[in-house]
Amino acid sequence: MRLFSLRAASTLCRQSAQHTFQFTRQFSCTALRTAGQTKQVVLTSEMYPDIHRDSRLGNVTSADVDHFKSILQPGSVLTDDTEDLSGFNVDSMRKYRGQARVVLKPRTTDEVAQIMKHCHERRLAVVPQGGNTGLVGGSVPVFDEIVISLGLMNKIRSFDNVSGILVADAGCILEATDNFLAERGYIFPLDLGAKGSCHIGGNVATNAGGLRLLRYGSLHGSVLGLEAVMANGTVVNGLGKLRKDNTGYDVKQMFIGSEGTLGVITAVSILCPRRSKVVNVAFLGLESYEQVQSAFVKAKADLSEILSAFEFMDRESINEVAKYSELRRPLDEQHNFYVLVETSGSNPEHDEEKLNKYLEDLMESDIIEDGVLANDETQLKNLWTWRETIPESLGKAGGVYKYDVSIPLPELYTLVEDTRTHLAKAGISIGTEDSVVVDVVGYGHLGDGNLHLNVAVKNYDKHIEHLLEPWVYEWIEKRHGSISAEHGLGFAKKNYIQYSKDPSMISVMKNLKTVFDPNGIMNPYKYI
Amino acid sequence: MRLFSLRAASTLCRQSAQHTFQFTRQFSCTALRTAGQTKQVVLTSEMYPDIHRDSRLGNVTSADVDHFKSILQPGSVLTDDTEDLSGFNVDSMRKYRGQARVVLKPRTTDEVAQIMKHCHERRLAVVPQGGNTGLVGGSVPVFDEIVISLGLMNKIRSFDNVSGILVADAGCILEATDNFLAERGYIFPLDLGAKGSCHIGGNVATNAGGLRLLRYGSLHGSVLGLEAVMANGTVVNGLGKLRKDNTGYDVKQMFIGSEGTLGVITAVSILCPRRSKVVNVAFLGLESYEQVQSAFVKAKADLSEILSAFEFMDRESINEVAKYSELRRPLDEQHNFYVLVETSGSNPEHDEEKLNKYLEDLMESDIIEDGVLANDETQLKNLWTWRETIPESLGKAGGVYKYDVSIPLPELYTLVEDTRTHLAKAGISIGTEDSVVVDVVGYGHLGDGNLHLNVAVKNYDKHIEHLLEPWVYEWIEKRHGSISAEHGLGFAKKNYIQYSKDPSMISVMKNLKTVFDPNGIMNPYKYI
Repeated sequence: MRLFSLRAASTLCRQSAQHTFQFTRQFSCTALRTAGQTKQVVLTSEMYPDIHRDSRLGNVTSADVDHFKSILQPGSVLTDDTEDLSGFNVDSMRKYRGQARVVLKPRTTDEVAQIMKHCHERRLAVVPQGGNTGLVGGSVPVFDEIVISLGLMNKIRSFDNVSGILVADAGCILEATDNFLAERGYIFPLDLGAKGSCHIGGNVATNAGGLRLLRYGSLHGSVLGLEAVMANGTVVNGLGKLRKDNTGYDVKQMFIGSEGTLGVITAVSILCPRRSKVVNVAFLGLESYEQVQSAFVKAKADLSEILSAFEFMDRESINEVAKYSELRRPLDEQHNFYVLVETSGSNPEHDEEKLNKYLEDLMESDIIEDGVLANDETQLKNLWTWRETIPESLGKAGGVYKYDVSIPLPELYTLVEDTRTHLAKAGISIGTEDSVVVDVVGYGHLGDGNLHLNVAVKNYDKHIEHLLEPWVYEWIEKRHGSISAEHGLGFAKKNYIQYSKDPSMISVMKNLKTVFDPNGIMNPYKYI
Repeated sequence: MRLFSLRAASTLCRQSAQHTFQFTRQFSCTALRTAGQTKQVVLTSEMYPDIHRDSRLGNVTSADVDHFKSILQPGSVLTDDTEDLSGFNVDSMRKYRGQARVVLKPRTTDEVAQIMKHCHERRLAVVPQGGNTGLVGGSVPVFDEIVISLGLMNKIRSFDNVSGILVADAGCILEATDNFLAERGYIFPLDLGAKGSCHIGGNVATNAGGLRLLRYGSLHGSVLGLEAVMANGTVVNGLGKLRKDNTGYDVKQMFIGSEGTLGVITAVSILCPRRSKVVNVAFLGLESYEQVQSAFVKAKADLSEILSAFEFMDRESINEVAKYSELRRPLDEQHNFYVLVETSGSNPEHDEEKLNKYLEDLMESDIIEDGVLANDETQLKNLWTWRETIPESLGKAGGVYKYDVSIPLPELYTLVEDTRTHLAKAGISIGTEDSVVVDVVGYGHLGDGNLHLNVAVKNYDKHIEHLLEPWVYEWIEKRHGSISAEHGLGFAKKNYIQYSKDPSMISVMKNLKTVFDPNGIMNPYKYI
């Protein structure tokens, strides 16, 4: 439905919306494959020769492997003598490659505890690994760390249909868990692009943000309890199923976002909200970033309790998706900015009325230039596709310098503009045939103050990298922003934490690490 | 409005509700004064002679006092030579009395840092104190600890009208802060009975739960950043104004609920939701606890995004309020259980329609026996009074053994019934002229699985106390509940944490305490 044609209309009714979308073909996400995916990934140790293996850490021997075989079930100890371990050594971005020679696949918390006890005594370094979908190289080894894959710990332990409290193994896949909840009228309070592969334990370990944070808040609020195995093999049983529990320090909070550096999360207890009966999505075209902000303020006021997502994309982001997609653009004209607004509520008529009123007001006050409203589930998913496939589309060019940052809203988009200017001043053109830089785009979770600044390149280029870093981090530091809003630190950003945290805070963090992992065997070379 | 008379009616409309309430007099909270309030409170050290002053801690000398005078502004150092310090030494329950001889009232974070640096070097113990409204004796000294009162640090530092992010000094009073936000269309994501006195820093330090948790979640989710002074005087500057920030361990989470044992919280950054335009309250009468649960499940499904409180009270709770109140009962008949349902939304018609439909369905399916709906702000406040003044009403008898516990919902009320049976078996009658036990009541935040079991007594009685403790804690331990849902541990429950946390967890906590406070000067004799 074109809002333009309805300026004079009093309501944006469902009937008139039926002829809006004529998507010619289903968008194929899997067809988007980055160019680099066919090449062998360079070893991290070769790419970063300044990083050396910690000599205090032990070397895995055949006796260690035999010990692991004695405590785990048959087929749970993989070694590079007989198996191809590249799937565990290479990250999802294909930027990092480790040299693990042993992968362990425990099935119970007790098995994890026995593994850790042995590794602690022998000072063997480990990398806990979930779905291996992280974006900062945190889930793969750097050298020969042992990979502990949680993939076989994937059972739902309990679900309470009254309270909505779910207890599940860390290795449960996010999408499967959400489907389990959907059948019971509930929803997992987190959603993200990698849901088909990522594990809920990994989500908690990285404190994933994603698409539902605006509505359901951060995992620090919704995770009620964790079971984790500490570096020395001690099982910390904090798997409470209580919404409120003020008995001592909330230790589980340290594990949320610790990226495998404190222990191995083996199970999660989480509060799941009721699944909304009605979901609506509108896709809007706007002229300026100021108008994007106005639309957001108005959404908070008018859509209030039913607002569930407010995502924004710039013109360039959508153009990049359009390059590779055969999907028809949601809006005929091009706009400088686009916004995807989602509502989730319990009453179809009420939600429709609120959303229509909101959209009409936006039109009448000239905050938006154009817009469409999804009319069915397929249209809704297609609109989301324009937002969700931006990262993959950008990757098709060759490589992407990704900056996942938090900045106070008024200045959020300025970073994208300043980056373009900064490159231009250095004589780098964007999108021309002879330039390595294909595009500079900005998009993200506006409702959370979270921008994804992406610089798409034909190939990774040290000159471009040095132009961008630490320039981007310094820019963010000046605005008291975060250099990693939701992706974490991992290997990629270990050396940049000081741009977002002051020395006293970093010092406290290092002391905390020592409490949990005195021998430094948990996911070394990363984080802090 | 009587729902009974409307069984056949198709809607519960506003017009017909206008004649419902005829409250004869405004309920006076301040008139409720506990009997014990006139007596001098026994010194904690005399009441608990087994607890000894830690001999490693230093004694405050006149040189220390001179030093404090040199770093603080005139009038900020109070000593018992010239001042009555009882307001700082006695807790709000009048159960505990400390012997602080020095009270410090810093005005800036730097002053707090200088105080702590000196205390750390001299091993002088301190108690950070906010509004001193805690219920577990955590905010007053046990021996001669120095009180650091945050009362003069009470400025709003900044508020962003787009993001709703507030940064404020720890000593801001909750109600004043909420009023500040109300003028700007926002709400503090926490509300509780003591709001007129309690400080937001104290709220965070105790991880207060209160009346809005069901809707806005816990402080672990809504607090975005903290500024705190560690035991050694180091200022931990984590006062971020970002909704998402995954750069390292989330250290602020350790301070949330640490009850002054890790450092002094000096400022808070918190995400505030938009204030709802419409608030409705219904007060229902029900026959059984099973029906209370059914009404809750239905509220989550039908009221969904507008549900903002679901409080329950048993017959005895309401009878206790009625004893001392001249307020007319909301419902003519007595019921075994009562529920207060609150909705908060953005559209009056939508909310009313949802709530009316919900109430009609409850009536038609015989889940409730009776109910009323507040028709204006005064009626709404009066209905809340029946819930909020239960604690004060119970206190009028003389004393109250208070248990603030989390238990899985199905068994939540069983604790109250079992307590009555347990006392009866021990030959203790309830409410008779010759019995010390006046009443055993249960009420609380059902939506959070949080029960307040209160045993009202004519006077504190060691025999009754020993009948109740550790019996209550053992009962809770068997159900994997929490012995302190929202009040914290403080002095009162320090020795009972093992009923809710296992030894490995307690061991981690003790190690964490040492990282932050190696000399043990922060709020000693409490917590863990």
